[in-house]
Amino acid sequence: MKTVYNFCSGPATLPQEVLDAVQVGLRSYKGTGMSVMELGHRSKWFDEILQEAVILVRELLSVPDDYSVFFMHGGASIHFALLPLNFSLLKKALYIDTGIWSSKAIQEAEILTSVEVIASGKDFNYQRIPPIHFIESNRYEADYIHLTSNNTIYGTQFTEFPDTGDLPLVVDMTSDIFSRQINVGQFGMIYAGAQKNFGIAGLSLCIVRRDLLERISGNIPKVLSYKLAAENNSRYHTPNTWAIYVAGEFLKWIKKEGGVQEMERRSKLRAKLIYDTIDNLDLFANSVESTSRSMMNIPFTTGDDWLDNEFVEEAEKEGLMQLAGHRTLKGIRASMYNGMPIEGAQRLQEFLSEFAVRNGK
Amino acid sequence: MKTVYNFCSGPATLPQEVLDAVQVGLRSYKGTGMSVMELGHRSKWFDEILQEAVILVRELLSVPDDYSVFFMHGGASIHFALLPLNFSLLKKALYIDTGIWSSKAIQEAEILTSVEVIASGKDFNYQRIPPIHFIESNRYEADYIHLTSNNTIYGTQFTEFPDTGDLPLVVDMTSDIFSRQINVGQFGMIYAGAQKNFGIAGLSLCIVRRDLLERISGNIPKVLSYKLAAENNSRYHTPNTWAIYVAGEFLKWIKKEGGVQEMERRSKLRAKLIYDTIDNLDLFANSVESTSRSMMNIPFTTGDDWLDNEFVEEAEKEGLMQLAGHRTLKGIRASMYNGMPIEGAQRLQEFLSEFAVRNGK
Repeated sequence: MKTVYNFCSGPATLPQEVLDAVQVGLRSYKGTGMSVMELGHRSKWFDEILQEAVILVRELLSVPDDYSVFFMHGGASIHFALLPLNFSLLKKALYIDTGIWSSKAIQEAEILTSVEVIASGKDFNYQRIPPIHFIESNRYEADYIHLTSNNTIYGTQFTEFPDTGDLPLVVDMTSDIFSRQINVGQFGMIYAGAQKNFGIAGLSLCIVRRDLLERISGNIPKVLSYKLAAENNSRYHTPNTWAIYVAGEFLKWIKKEGGVQEMERRSKLRAKLIYDTIDNLDLFANSVESTSRSMMNIPFTTGDDWLDNEFVEEAEKEGLMQLAGHRTLKGIRASMYNGMPIEGAQRLQEFLSEFAVRNGK
Repeated sequence: MKTVYNFCSGPATLPQEVLDAVQVGLRSYKGTGMSVMELGHRSKWFDEILQEAVILVRELLSVPDDYSVFFMHGGASIHFALLPLNFSLLKKALYIDTGIWSSKAIQEAEILTSVEVIASGKDFNYQRIPPIHFIESNRYEADYIHLTSNNTIYGTQFTEFPDTGDLPLVVDMTSDIFSRQINVGQFGMIYAGAQKNFGIAGLSLCIVRRDLLERISGNIPKVLSYKLAAENNSRYHTPNTWAIYVAGEFLKWIKKEGGVQEMERRSKLRAKLIYDTIDNLDLFANSVESTSRSMMNIPFTTGDDWLDNEFVEEAEKEGLMQLAGHRTLKGIRASMYNGMPIEGAQRLQEFLSEFAVRNGK
């Protein structure tokens, strides 16, 4: 079979070993003769799959005991609505605006609560993370403060998270979870769609401090309640069983490869290869402020739509897939999450140089 | 590999040919070298997958042009909350109560709207469908009337749907969609989790009359809006790409086998095999009123918990899997959806007779 490297911003590439493992489970889970997709979500077999996945999340991120870990349907966008629905005691939430995804989170929250944007990268055209190191929590009466840790479209990333004192910090970590070492105890809630760094579309992971779950009203729809999802161990209703299985196999692979520390090392190495190459070639430009550059998503351009398009098409012929920029910004974008081998970044690096030579720069 | 027959109530068994087909897509979609799970949800490849699935739904159910067809995350339970959220102009909805799932739909609706239960099987212990042939729609000021077409736990099923006049009839068809011929034009909305009759957990199908979509407020969370899901062709946000692919392959298989008409023939045949056997053997009893019996789920019991359990365990050793009754009712339950071959019902029939002989009846 053709070996390709897939730079899709998500749903993203999976490690070959994970694809091999889930292929077995697709046919017959542990010799039962049943596909994982055919197992009852309350069967003894799926019990095992779910439990393993949760234990691996706890282990890989050293999740403290006073946090619940559970899965829900859908990706991060679902949580843009669920956050204000679940956490609206004071009817006010603070948001940091770092681009399109955080803006979407803000717009969705505004339907259900009052939003104050306390910092924004808008004045910098979202080419840098707004400098915000701590929040004077006593200045605000708010249910939580929200930020997006990595911005897939603009290619920016928080290198450190602000100290928010008593205000629960809620972070959309979809595009960099398990790719960087974090201190879970710093957050009120972490949520992440699975389809970039640890699985496939249709699943999200939630890590929530238990005291926040206790505050949730019993008078919100049950299927949308974090409290019920946590209390029922991801099974208040039928969960996305196949996606949980794939996530579990992905997490096993991360552990085997050396854990989050090793994922972080690889992530930095891949990003350095591409940034260095782009910076050294006159043909390409990435305009993100250097300290805000994302380790996951590198948008760049030749400055010429036609040539950008040529790049994407020629790359595809060379097995470097899905390099087109986001439909709003266009250009070129290389997304490199946990599933991307170093060799993928090296092949892209070579192609960048070849393409620049062919195009006279 | 071991051949087993899997009677799980859902996530349910998939046709072997569907498992074979998706195994190929798991490795490499149409020779791209990328797994379907790795395709961007706005890529040309996934465009094709999504479009094919929607066309097949329209074709197999002869969906009229004034209905939208789209997919959402999660199963039927999600819609228990989304229905009153989306359709609450008059702040009142009518429900028919036929057991645990319709009761859950009612409880969830009560959080967001005023509910009137206009018919209930409760007085019959849910052992029959309440007789209701038409609704005098001018008697009610309501947004919609809801029913569950097949009840997986009690094993009852509507053979015909009531005429509801001007009141939009909304039906949870999770457990019998594509297994019976229906007239879509009779309904305001049909919704169904995929994991029983045409796919896997984590996905639901919605078929909604367009004038109902137009009534939906722009002031509900965007990710929970049927209107936005329809307008964005299932891609307001990242959909469950793998589950849509599996559903498409399942629907292709239904078409190839002879369509919904053929699924209905098989469904009736499988059910007859088991009901006749149970009715003829003194050891087993199914207590559902004969005209309300489900073609999909057959709950039965020996009347002895210990023996029921023996049955389930011995059956599993014979490759007849997941026959335990629902955790609320216990006993034994055979669920036979579109993916169950006739041979599965025949094997179960044989085992029922053998077990009865071994146990002296």
